[in-house]
Amino acid sequence: MSSVPRIAIEHASQYVGQTVEIAGWLYNLRRSGKIIFPLLRDGTGIMQCVAVKADISEKCFNDLRDLTQESSVIVRGRVRAESRAPGGYELDVEDAGIVHRIPEDQPYPITPKEHGIEFLFDHRHLHLRSRRPHAILRVRHEIIRAIRDYFDSNGFTLVDTPIFTPAACEGTTTLFEVDYFEDEKVYLTQSGQLYNEATAMAFGKTYCFGPTFRAEKSKTRRHLTEFWMVEPEMAYATLEDVKRVSEELICFIVRRVLERRRHELETLERDIGKLEAIRAPFPRISYDEAVAILQRKGSEIQWGGDFGGTDETLLSEEFGQPVMVDRFPAEIKAFYFQPDEQRPEVVLGVDVLASEGYGEIVGGGQRIHDYNLLLQRIREHNLPQKAFDWYLDLRRYGSVPHAGFGMGVERTVAWICGLDHIRETIAFPRMLYRTRP
Amino acid sequence: MSSVPRIAIEHASQYVGQTVEIAGWLYNLRRSGKIIFPLLRDGTGIMQCVAVKADISEKCFNDLRDLTQESSVIVRGRVRAESRAPGGYELDVEDAGIVHRIPEDQPYPITPKEHGIEFLFDHRHLHLRSRRPHAILRVRHEIIRAIRDYFDSNGFTLVDTPIFTPAACEGTTTLFEVDYFEDEKVYLTQSGQLYNEATAMAFGKTYCFGPTFRAEKSKTRRHLTEFWMVEPEMAYATLEDVKRVSEELICFIVRRVLERRRHELETLERDIGKLEAIRAPFPRISYDEAVAILQRKGSEIQWGGDFGGTDETLLSEEFGQPVMVDRFPAEIKAFYFQPDEQRPEVVLGVDVLASEGYGEIVGGGQRIHDYNLLLQRIREHNLPQKAFDWYLDLRRYGSVPHAGFGMGVERTVAWICGLDHIRETIAFPRMLYRTRP
Repeated sequence: MSSVPRIAIEHASQYVGQTVEIAGWLYNLRRSGKIIFPLLRDGTGIMQCVAVKADISEKCFNDLRDLTQESSVIVRGRVRAESRAPGGYELDVEDAGIVHRIPEDQPYPITPKEHGIEFLFDHRHLHLRSRRPHAILRVRHEIIRAIRDYFDSNGFTLVDTPIFTPAACEGTTTLFEVDYFEDEKVYLTQSGQLYNEATAMAFGKTYCFGPTFRAEKSKTRRHLTEFWMVEPEMAYATLEDVKRVSEELICFIVRRVLERRRHELETLERDIGKLEAIRAPFPRISYDEAVAILQRKGSEIQWGGDFGGTDETLLSEEFGQPVMVDRFPAEIKAFYFQPDEQRPEVVLGVDVLASEGYGEIVGGGQRIHDYNLLLQRIREHNLPQKAFDWYLDLRRYGSVPHAGFGMGVERTVAWICGLDHIRETIAFPRMLYRTRP
Repeated sequence: MSSVPRIAIEHASQYVGQTVEIAGWLYNLRRSGKIIFPLLRDGTGIMQCVAVKADISEKCFNDLRDLTQESSVIVRGRVRAESRAPGGYELDVEDAGIVHRIPEDQPYPITPKEHGIEFLFDHRHLHLRSRRPHAILRVRHEIIRAIRDYFDSNGFTLVDTPIFTPAACEGTTTLFEVDYFEDEKVYLTQSGQLYNEATAMAFGKTYCFGPTFRAEKSKTRRHLTEFWMVEPEMAYATLEDVKRVSEELICFIVRRVLERRRHELETLERDIGKLEAIRAPFPRISYDEAVAILQRKGSEIQWGGDFGGTDETLLSEEFGQPVMVDRFPAEIKAFYFQPDEQRPEVVLGVDVLASEGYGEIVGGGQRIHDYNLLLQRIREHNLPQKAFDWYLDLRRYGSVPHAGFGMGVERTVAWICGLDHIRETIAFPRMLYRTRP
């Protein structure tokens, strides 16, 4: 083919009236006698091409007419603004070169008809080419960019924490064990928090952002065994800072996606008005109030109990905004939470539940900074003191009040995209019964 | 303390003449009779404070005078420009409140004297507060930002690939095995490439960026068991695109670090002129030429052999720029490399070796896109065909020439910072004999 510019479909608006080349795959094809309409996708968008028999070579016309779904093809043509076209532009075909034609007798397995969800995830390596997963993962990318941009421009230093860890943050039952060398065992991280507390003392404000692992044998629509989490931690900070920063972060992410990925939200048929309504300040309630709301709504929860998935959904549906629930019973929270001075039976932790029934997307709070209290908690929880000696060091040497939180990427993506099941939020989900492809 | 603004030391220049609060830790203290000079660090910088006995309360003066290294303290004072001060600004102390004082009899373990490297890494959770690791990790953060900014602004979609993988990319001897559920085994990823090839067909240009794992029993200064890698992959692309993009990326990173992290490079006593000299186009040589150069320099390498660490160093020292070596013997490269049409015994792969003896930081090339050839290679390498069936699908359905590469973050950080050992490039290194803290 000639040396005309090769462009991405998402940049078509910059080339109106020009002849360009698009390298992609046939998404669909509509025939209408002497005109055919190949729908081309190139990974950045989908564009309708118009091939008129009279205007192009017979070979080119016939090649395109007989092209099979997902065959790869490079099309040359002139970009034309067309308000009725889905993306706003069409391509008047001048020439085309087929790169790889899929034969009719071994067709692309994912057709426009309905497929079962297991079939689609067994073919996830191909399924990602479809409109819906494509849109979700573009939104996911934008959410991750927004998270990083937020922390990078607010004085946080990224300090990646280790995946291989010697000790557990919260019990060992949900840990994945790895054979290290010479019979040593290590565990896959469930949270970078303990390490973040060390790096916050070195950098002031830090965050880690990477995959975390949970060997949970539950098969729910909210759980993956491998998921991504961002965890900021701040020295000289309290529970109030966690609320302020997580609220700012959530608003920043939602605004960014609305600005840059509106088209993808429309593809997903997301109720965009509900996202546009998200704004600070979010409602703030105590655990006590949350329990009262839940009981009123028919939950059997008693004070002292942890919220189940259904409880989170009930609470989350109560408000049109994400809701912050704080001051949980110490009993149901991890050993490192700072107790409330006024009411030592509750701790300075907060969960943020997304709106529309999506449940927890953020959990965090203020950490114990007193050496003796932390040591006492480690003993009360029967944790191996030796393994936590380095963590205790942070209270031996220049201890300061500090706080932080974790935000689950997949749950945030599910909420913003309005998805029923978390498996759709990641390219290759890993679950109890799914480790392939 | 009063409600004066609390500032980060790195923003001191914006507050000259104003009274501010700095919350940090005592880095060092110089006494000179009735004036003392506490050096305060807050994670964003180090600032010299000046406390004059006559100007502040006796308690405040005595508290500061007797303060121990790494005790946490909040200092109030007025910012003054001082060209002789290390950061350009000093703080004239008005008041101070000690948050946590470390007792003299249990002092902070890392003193200004020299410590052995094992001692420092055993205390890595504290060591990160020291100037050198602090500077390195700030540069690391900047490098990671630059990498993401480059890909995000050049049309690449981030698609994270799985950590748990069922099959190996290049043999199984260096894989970490994980017990999944019910006797299933999975392996920790060594590369996202095979998945990237699927996502490139869905998004056009993609990248993944996450931790990767290698169970290498070698104890060298270039190996970690857990390290971070960025891997772009492009549909409709060739070896030449890999060279162009990796060259652009490396130049972008180096320029960014020079712009934004010069102070940290100076702290590390990096020869900055050598980084300033880095510019495209990088020298490009073939494997054949590389072997000739090495033999001339006394290496025992023969055509067909792989470069050892020493060979890489020799080559890397030959040029003042990163050097690109391409067209390696098919025998020493992975099964998926596209052979050179003119010379089928070599493949369209390229390694980029950093300058100054740092060796390989990028490896990549063009992948086989022909179904039959790929199948033949899978058989020649005795790989389980069933496990690669999904990978073969990418050649069954709309196959296109495609190419990509991987860049190791830690090796890039080592090169740009001028470090002898890779363990310094990451907060909590994991090596053969190190899994703690």
